[in-house]
Amino acid sequence: MRIIDLNADLGEGFGPWTMGDDAAMLDIVSSANIACGFHAGDPEVMFATMQTASKKQVAIGAHPGFADLAGFGRRRLPLTLAEVERITAYQIGAAMGVAQLGRTSIRYVKAHGALSNWVSEDESAARAFARGIKGVDPTLPCLAIAATASETGALAEGLAVFCEVFADRTYQHDGTLTPRSRLDAMIHDPDASVRHVLGMLETGALLPLDGKPIPTRIDSICLHGDSAGAVERATRLRSALEAAGYIIRPFAG
Amino acid sequence: MRIIDLNADLGEGFGPWTMGDDAAMLDIVSSANIACGFHAGDPEVMFATMQTASKKQVAIGAHPGFADLAGFGRRRLPLTLAEVERITAYQIGAAMGVAQLGRTSIRYVKAHGALSNWVSEDESAARAFARGIKGVDPTLPCLAIAATASETGALAEGLAVFCEVFADRTYQHDGTLTPRSRLDAMIHDPDASVRHVLGMLETGALLPLDGKPIPTRIDSICLHGDSAGAVERATRLRSALEAAGYIIRPFAG
Amino acid sequence: MRIIDLNADLGEGFGPWTMGDDAAMLDIVSSANIACGFHAGDPEVMFATMQTASKKQVAIGAHPGFADLAGFGRRRLPLTLAEVERITAYQIGAAMGVAQLGRTSIRYVKAHGALSNWVSEDESAARAFARGIKGVDPTLPCLAIAATASETGALAEGLAVFCEVFADRTYQHDGTLTPRSRLDAMIHDPDASVRHVLGMLETGALLPLDGKPIPTRIDSICLHGDSAGAVERATRLRSALEAAGYIIRPFAG
Amino acid sequence: MRIIDLNADLGEGFGPWTMGDDAAMLDIVSSANIACGFHAGDPEVMFATMQTASKKQVAIGAHPGFADLAGFGRRRLPLTLAEVERITAYQIGAAMGVAQLGRTSIRYVKAHGALSNWVSEDESAARAFARGIKGVDPTLPCLAIAATASETGALAEGLAVFCEVFADRTYQHDGTLTPRSRLDAMIHDPDASVRHVLGMLETGALLPLDGKPIPTRIDSICLHGDSAGAVERATRLRSALEAAGYIIRPFAG
Repeated sequence: MRIIDLNADLGEGFGPWTMGDDAAMLDIVSSANIACGFHAGDPEVMFATMQTASKKQVAIGAHPGFADLAGFGRRRLPLTLAEVERITAYQIGAAMGVAQLGRTSIRYVKAHGALSNWVSEDESAARAFARGIKGVDPTLPCLAIAATASETGALAEGLAVFCEVFADRTYQHDGTLTPRSRLDAMIHDPDASVRHVLGMLETGALLPLDGKPIPTRIDSICLHGDSAGAVERATRLRSALEAAGYIIRPFAG
Repeated sequence: MRIIDLNADLGEGFGPWTMGDDAAMLDIVSSANIACGFHAGDPEVMFATMQTASKKQVAIGAHPGFADLAGFGRRRLPLTLAEVERITAYQIGAAMGVAQLGRTSIRYVKAHGALSNWVSEDESAARAFARGIKGVDPTLPCLAIAATASETGALAEGLAVFCEVFADRTYQHDGTLTPRSRLDAMIHDPDASVRHVLGMLETGALLPLDGKPIPTRIDSICLHGDSAGAVERATRLRSALEAAGYIIRPFAG
Repeated sequence: MRIIDLNADLGEGFGPWTMGDDAAMLDIVSSANIACGFHAGDPEVMFATMQTASKKQVAIGAHPGFADLAGFGRRRLPLTLAEVERITAYQIGAAMGVAQLGRTSIRYVKAHGALSNWVSEDESAARAFARGIKGVDPTLPCLAIAATASETGALAEGLAVFCEVFADRTYQHDGTLTPRSRLDAMIHDPDASVRHVLGMLETGALLPLDGKPIPTRIDSICLHGDSAGAVERATRLRSALEAAGYIIRPFAG
Repeated sequence: MRIIDLNADLGEGFGPWTMGDDAAMLDIVSSANIACGFHAGDPEVMFATMQTASKKQVAIGAHPGFADLAGFGRRRLPLTLAEVERITAYQIGAAMGVAQLGRTSIRYVKAHGALSNWVSEDESAARAFARGIKGVDPTLPCLAIAATASETGALAEGLAVFCEVFADRTYQHDGTLTPRSRLDAMIHDPDASVRHVLGMLETGALLPLDGKPIPTRIDSICLHGDSAGAVERATRLRSALEAAGYIIRPFAG
């Protein structure tokens, strides 16, 4: 029996604003990375998204990011490592509070946006992020980007770590994502995306555009829910995975 | 043996800004109501204040308020009761996350500013606030304003409730605070404040300016730390209470 | 020759979030009320919306509101009248700065959301709002809700005042809008909305559900751009007005 | 007759929080750089500070910064150059609106914090900042840091440019400030600070710790108002300058 998780960033509205089609995506994914109020999300959005996820048996993850609504957490703020620990603990705690109010719970943590980029590149940042998680609950798993510092940093701090790959992004020979500035960064064709994902799952490796396979743990596929056609692409990927014999199930217990 | 708690609002800085003399007040009080980032406080201020409180054996309370930095949580926002539950749970959770990161813990919850005014006047709001607490942790006590809806509402939701009176505010015949617009709202004379507090403690009642004593539970005295002379007045009150045989100790576990 | 203006609230995105179909609405309206960063809008959104409006010869109005992104300016903040003056002047100035950078200009001012409700009900608030406008530029006109305190307050402060009626809201016998809690508050049927607007224009009066016509100045029709079907309804109203011989043109110079 | 301007960053409170002793500093300086709401300042603080400045005949400058209250504008946000233009124009316009409401006016513009650092190092950023100023009012002067890209960038865009030196910071051989990480970055001794300033004024040059004098235009001395002893140091510098025959007067009109 082959099992895989599908995750997406959800609950990214704020106040009067919505983003993406959360209800549709929650029918497709098995894990929902829910914004915690710093780069998106407010207590109402968080609560509502968690309730819907819970009803659909989707695992809820806290998705901490930089405190930057206008920049949607996509601008790197030059925080100290101690500040990274604290914004992480604050946001996880806040998500736990809202989850508990709704009789559900936080099952994992994943970094958002520019914070994710930072912890993927810099193991000291990844360890600070992991200490933020561990400080709140040492049994809480981290969802890391496969074969990056976010994986090794979280492991070094003793966390349970699960790894994700991307359905629509290509990899370079060193396992990093091809920069969006390059024409071949994104996989736009849905069939190509399916082949890309199945290839990684079957080989247990990242498959760079230019270079040898990079063996890695793969627990989850990261989907994007906020672009045109996102829901259709995600539906298609899920169907293809199921047709290939995969059961879609949360990685986190 | 007579025991009483002294509490004050602390951790009310934000980013580059400070408020009051937290270090001095933490030598005087036994319970610290710590802002949770909505009306004041950020993860750094919260962490630092909790660490100092913990070292000084001061009990740490979460102090949720309205999300209104510019208004310092003193402007009533017309939230729904469901929204009150959620902002309360979010802020308590966030405070717990930061506390746990620093190996300390949240021992109680008290409402701040205009949210406090609302829950003191309106039992449905008080119950919503209490449900926010209960949703996160049903064993977490609430620090309520004595003889108001904040006490009865929290009791009705089944929370452990402790009650506070004010050291420098006078009461009206119905137990409400004399409005600040009246000349006799505040007790400016430190000796008068000491007599006011000792009177309430010894009779177990609010002592209105105009009317009969109102028997009430009194677990804590609320001090203010952010005005000129606040530290001196607080020091004097603490000394007077000790001289009268009171032991100053957190009400919460 | 009969002339009328159509106005709508636009530029109500913030950071990563969008609201409504601004590009489509800017093909329909002749005046755009542009959010100024307090309840919605940021310098990028403001600049881009003003540029598009300017290319389409749509007059640009500043649309000040309460500083409350999470509540979208729809929650009344208990400001002093002096504060109303200052937030109004700040936002108009900011809009002017962004407009001038893009070689266009602010042609009028209209209050947003809960601030609009307040100035429509309370002439002292309306006068404070008008003083905020006058302080920045005494020649800048105010777009007021017809037959309310927002009109009389702005006139009392000596501003040029233009008046708007609503395409999809009904009026009560005293000229106020029927509360949204009532079933007959909204005019959902597009044909009924067209008849409602033409009726007001032809009689020069508000036409209450229950009561006599209330004569009033009418310079502009307020459309809503952020609901389902909004663009279609607005297109239909514009066509009906043109078919009835009206020229759609900005009221402001 | 020798004339010099003294400037300081003022109006850096926000909501309930204050910073520094603005009233005292406004008795010393001739130009006040007033925060515009993005890194500090709100419409009330801006209005009040401008009113006091105006009464004391202190010239009012707009002091735009990054939109980052928690970081006080001291963290570099990775904005595009177009975004720099727009945040600059927004903030200048907002300051003008508040100034006009109080029957005073903005006389110059200076960049704050991390934005100032950026425009001092990078002429393309300096030009974007200058275009933000020019877009709002091409006659508005820029106060630049002497002998940096902020001066050359503003000149290249055709602005009137005035230059400042620092009373309490040392310079390196290339005219840049000695990094704060070095022990000799700050001039702590008030007498040394006076000698440092008089030396620069008399030679018309920056006087690096290690290297030859760097001739430069000097129109203003930047003082800091928010540290312990700041007011005393500023008073002493002003007295020393007056004793040396300087008249303290705004550089701007």
